[in-house]
Amino acid sequence: MPPAAPPDRTADRIDVHTHLLPRELPRWADRFGYGGFVGLDHPTGCRARMVRDDGTVFREVDPNLWDPAERLRDMDETRVAVQVLSTVPVMFCYWTPPRDGLQVARYLNDHLADVVRRHPKRFVGLGTLPLQDPDLAIAELDRCMGDLGLCGVQIGSHVRGPGADRNLDDPALFAVFARAAQLGAAVFVHPWDMMGEADMRKYWLPWLVGMPAECSRALCSLMFGGVFTRLPKLRVCVAHGGGSFAATLGRIQHGFEARPDLCAIDNAVAPRDHVGRFWVDALVHDPRALRLIIDTFGVDRVTVGSDYPFPLGEAQPGGLVASLALDANAHGKIQMDNALHWLGIDRHLRRKEAL
Amino acid sequence: MPPAAPPDRTADRIDVHTHLLPRELPRWADRFGYGGFVGLDHPTGCRARMVRDDGTVFREVDPNLWDPAERLRDMDETRVAVQVLSTVPVMFCYWTPPRDGLQVARYLNDHLADVVRRHPKRFVGLGTLPLQDPDLAIAELDRCMGDLGLCGVQIGSHVRGPGADRNLDDPALFAVFARAAQLGAAVFVHPWDMMGEADMRKYWLPWLVGMPAECSRALCSLMFGGVFTRLPKLRVCVAHGGGSFAATLGRIQHGFEARPDLCAIDNAVAPRDHVGRFWVDALVHDPRALRLIIDTFGVDRVTVGSDYPFPLGEAQPGGLVASLALDANAHGKIQMDNALHWLGIDRHLRRKEAL
Repeated sequence: MPPAAPPDRTADRIDVHTHLLPRELPRWADRFGYGGFVGLDHPTGCRARMVRDDGTVFREVDPNLWDPAERLRDMDETRVAVQVLSTVPVMFCYWTPPRDGLQVARYLNDHLADVVRRHPKRFVGLGTLPLQDPDLAIAELDRCMGDLGLCGVQIGSHVRGPGADRNLDDPALFAVFARAAQLGAAVFVHPWDMMGEADMRKYWLPWLVGMPAECSRALCSLMFGGVFTRLPKLRVCVAHGGGSFAATLGRIQHGFEARPDLCAIDNAVAPRDHVGRFWVDALVHDPRALRLIIDTFGVDRVTVGSDYPFPLGEAQPGGLVASLALDANAHGKIQMDNALHWLGIDRHLRRKEAL
Repeated sequence: MPPAAPPDRTADRIDVHTHLLPRELPRWADRFGYGGFVGLDHPTGCRARMVRDDGTVFREVDPNLWDPAERLRDMDETRVAVQVLSTVPVMFCYWTPPRDGLQVARYLNDHLADVVRRHPKRFVGLGTLPLQDPDLAIAELDRCMGDLGLCGVQIGSHVRGPGADRNLDDPALFAVFARAAQLGAAVFVHPWDMMGEADMRKYWLPWLVGMPAECSRALCSLMFGGVFTRLPKLRVCVAHGGGSFAATLGRIQHGFEARPDLCAIDNAVAPRDHVGRFWVDALVHDPRALRLIIDTFGVDRVTVGSDYPFPLGEAQPGGLVASLALDANAHGKIQMDNALHWLGIDRHLRRKEAL
């Protein structure tokens, strides 16, 4: 059999930021004996509801959240060659006892891998890990990159909950990042469990204000904690354009220079010298903000990500990028090549062939 | 006596963002019978320490925090015509019983007004208000704008504490904003008590990540809560370039359009239509970020603010603005005219003359 070709470049783009759930989710509360989980309710009609086990509705959703056929139809319409699939961050479950979190992760990863396996040219997958227990997380990472044939993992902007209390600089998480670097696993950082959520419940502010801050918190933790410096092969992409990071990089750099006693305690590399070390998606909904992240992070470090199929996303993935006056080379990089590079996709496809 | 001239334009700029404390602060804990306050300790030597009443050091400070002569020397060196003085946000004390908060505010405002009175051409003043009690806050606002001769107030990005639980959209605060609009009081919004602070103590992240988010939280609350819409004469300036707001305005606008059921519940005016309704300072430490806020908010809505005398500030106030390739007209606006407009300074000086 000849080696698999890279994804079809006559279709336009790779969408690195899309979410997938199984149509049916176990009733984890019944299985584990405590609540706090989000499930999917399917009343009559097409729409479903993501419902907390206390009965409160988290979000109404359409079948394109779980149905590959619906997704493929949308992808064809919007010229998305490949969707990178990841779970919905509310499923991270970093707050559960580790073995339970592992069980949830395995369930979601098995399903996601199955979708990828059935449509290998249109979907690539990122698993989820029980980061509240780094050893279990590494074992599941190995399984994702081995048997499941995924090309990386999605992680939260922090790992906090009753059983864990960690930002991404935490030494306990370093072994997970080291293993990801060793395996060539792409790491997608997604905001979740937003800072300040309890104090700004109105006006969707956790999503509009908290999420951008979460992205910056994650990047700052990886930088100041020395993760990028110690793992030059680690490939990280941050959702939502890296949030507030680009616009506040001057402030962060200035803070590093003004108070090294606070900022440079674990790593002497300055914030600006980390630029170029990570990717972001282009999900910023504003041409000026997109220019800022391209100018700041570099034309090789921005990818298309739409947050499909959620309402805060970009209905036409890559539409904002396409609207920008960039040369064709830059368009090709942002719509396709940078994602391939971040995902290590050629390597990934070769590895799949070798299995 | 002829009417007072506006501040000398041969000197370069107005710095709208500078902090002042009295050299001596009462031991509020002794007076009120409970702790939680920050005081000033003066060991031998020039430097002092801002110390919490549990003994932990908040920050080391230099005499230019309290000594007008030191400040005037720095201003002459850096060609700052006028400093707009405000207290240090850790002094807001919104968390105390209202009468105690009023006592702290009155002490600070009396001192600040005295400094302004002794150097009326070089300093203008913003008072602080006990916002945990809107009635007391309005009474103190009246005093600030009357007897004390200040030109406005500085407020926090939210008003939270055991006795108050409010973002700036809270109906209880509207009467304060309405009174400020009626009196022509300039309102400076400063981040404080940063979201997520307890969960990201390392690397100065509350200042580098939390503060920009606080500025956006404040602006979003004022917008979505309808404060700008209902009070067209209210003049608000937000510190630190408005934080993450400009870079995430596309996201905020998109959120408003995608989920009006969450965002447009108190005000139908879209986020982008609020642009031009408020000022920001230029304290962003990065030419690209400064371009973004000028392009986003308009060349009439950006002012110079340095956070003097603190280390996260700009050592040469307005230096970043001066480094940008703008036409002379734009430079004049940002360095001087926009601040005069926000402060209502001509009107303010005329009013002082009339007293």
